Amino acid sequence: MQKQPDKAIQLSHGGGGQEMNKLIKSLFFKAFDNPLLCREEDAAALMLSGQCAFTTDAFTVSPLFFAGGNIGKLAIAGTVNDLAMMAAKPEYLAASFIIEEGFALADLRTIVESMAAELAVSGARIVCGDTKVVPRGCADGVFITTTGVGHIQHQGISSHALTAGDAVLISRDIGRHGAAILMGREGLELDSELTSDCATLWPAVKALLDAGLEIHAMRDATRGGLAAVLNEWSQASGVGIDVQEQAIPVADPVRGLCELYGFEPYDLANEGTFVIALPAHQAQQALTALQALPCCPDAAVIGQVSGANPGKVILTSPWGSSRYLELPAGELLPRIC
Amino acid sequence: MQKQPDKAIQLSHGGGGQEMNKLIKSLFFKAFDNPLLCREEDAAALMLSGQCAFTTDAFTVSPLFFAGGNIGKLAIAGTVNDLAMMAAKPEYLAASFIIEEGFALADLRTIVESMAAELAVSGARIVCGDTKVVPRGCADGVFITTTGVGHIQHQGISSHALTAGDAVLISRDIGRHGAAILMGREGLELDSELTSDCATLWPAVKALLDAGLEIHAMRDATRGGLAAVLNEWSQASGVGIDVQEQAIPVADPVRGLCELYGFEPYDLANEGTFVIALPAHQAQQALTALQALPCCPDAAVIGQVSGANPGKVILTSPWGSSRYLELPAGELLPRIC
Repeated sequence: MQKQPDKAIQLSHGGGGQEMNKLIKSLFFKAFDNPLLCREEDAAALMLSGQCAFTTDAFTVSPLFFAGGNIGKLAIAGTVNDLAMMAAKPEYLAASFIIEEGFALADLRTIVESMAAELAVSGARIVCGDTKVVPRGCADGVFITTTGVGHIQHQGISSHALTAGDAVLISRDIGRHGAAILMGREGLELDSELTSDCATLWPAVKALLDAGLEIHAMRDATRGGLAAVLNEWSQASGVGIDVQEQAIPVADPVRGLCELYGFEPYDLANEGTFVIALPAHQAQQALTALQALPCCPDAAVIGQVSGANPGKVILTSPWGSSRYLELPAGELLPRIC
Repeated sequence: MQKQPDKAIQLSHGGGGQEMNKLIKSLFFKAFDNPLLCREEDAAALMLSGQCAFTTDAFTVSPLFFAGGNIGKLAIAGTVNDLAMMAAKPEYLAASFIIEEGFALADLRTIVESMAAELAVSGARIVCGDTKVVPRGCADGVFITTTGVGHIQHQGISSHALTAGDAVLISRDIGRHGAAILMGREGLELDSELTSDCATLWPAVKALLDAGLEIHAMRDATRGGLAAVLNEWSQASGVGIDVQEQAIPVADPVRGLCELYGFEPYDLANEGTFVIALPAHQAQQALTALQALPCCPDAAVIGQVSGANPGKVILTSPWGSSRYLELPAGELLPRIC
């Protein structure tokens, strides 16, 4: 028999019986309440029409709580951002929880409430879910998989659509999420404002779409960081991408951590930072739209798409030397998201 | 440095860099190949039109391989069945993998190939996915979350739609999945044909829809078993459900395991068995349609919906005694699905 049965998750909370029903009703249904939420059937019924984006992500971040967010905020922002990067309005989400026996109910409540708060930023709604509980030692706290659906508002945005002459923009300074997780994991307490960039990007994307810009490609720089996005784009579109090192915003504490641990800020994960490619003559208009938002005062043009060096990303230092910016390899930081 | 880097999952397989790209291309893209599969963007683009069902499930079954299936087959059948129970044609699936570092690549391949084989039964396609790797000891082998979307073919099927006078049918004998998992976990080797019922139910549902039957409610009896479905229905519709014990098919080895471990077959999970409520005068036609299928020779009428005892399920024994069939409580079998 366990003590304090109401203060920690028990195996019976995942058993399909009375205890699971009580947990779902008292926690999930309350936090995620909306008319479409599937309560008594196995699936939600949605009216959809036209081209929709569909995306899924499993979140296993460690630590679960970090400077600037937690796994719940991340699970919503991450999936909503994948929809936003397809120019899809984030509308309907599914949330699956895998919870370790003994996990504190208070922490689960905090995580779920963070999810509800982050949903409000885009107006997306959780319409169905699932809860599984595994015995102690079979998972590490809680894992959340979120899957999203939304109508695509603007066709043709694709990693294949980069064109020589495009400008490449970043929405803000890079590497914050990776650095915040590293700091949390190493138990570092820096005297700094180093927080994850974890955020919902739909308002920024909507501002760009509303401005009528001809966006060629758009991608949030999550696992693998800016380096992964640029390499995937250059290969998919068969173009070269030239990037100026001094144009890429990096906050001082992120730069400091990178020097300490031997990371490159280009490889570090972000969770609320995106890269945009669009015709160079629209770059200033895009910057103006982004910089008007609270999230993006540091938005910057960081490079250009070229017809030379197809499939390669070339980084030029302030001193004029150039090198390939490679796709990251090796372990990097595990459980970053 | 690890030995045999290609034989086991490494942390780098989830890092977002070169190793992850290689794993995804060599394993997932090959097994799940189809024109809609999202390869270079963050989301798949789907053309949808009308009422769609949307459902998610996390699968954490232990053991991963059991008599009659494995976690991969289960992850496809389970999510496809949730769509089928809404009379939705299973069309598009998302698959998220959380893999423990060191997991055998050969086992992952077997699981993924089982998923591909099970997809073929309904014609559903995986169109997007995600892979995370967590360090040894942070998960138990592999967890899979599958989320599905499909167009609803027949409106109005609902746990609220049961009506006094309806017949209640079961598609086959009950309790096999729970019993097979129990057998696997306890290391029992019974001299029997005890296998999980794990299967895709769309062909059976399609046969019922094609027969033009007026189905009121339909539900696969997964966690919580037959008892959970009947209790949820009786409460949602405010009706009583009378069930005849001797009419419920239970295979001998399942009955034997129940006696050995003190379980009731009504509480045991199924993964390819569903309950149907429809007007009594259509019961024989439904039985004929089901029994014509290879999966359902034992389909049976097991009870009736009544206006008496709203919210209660009453089980009558062959000797005429009656008792409430309650919603299961307590731990039952953890990690059944």
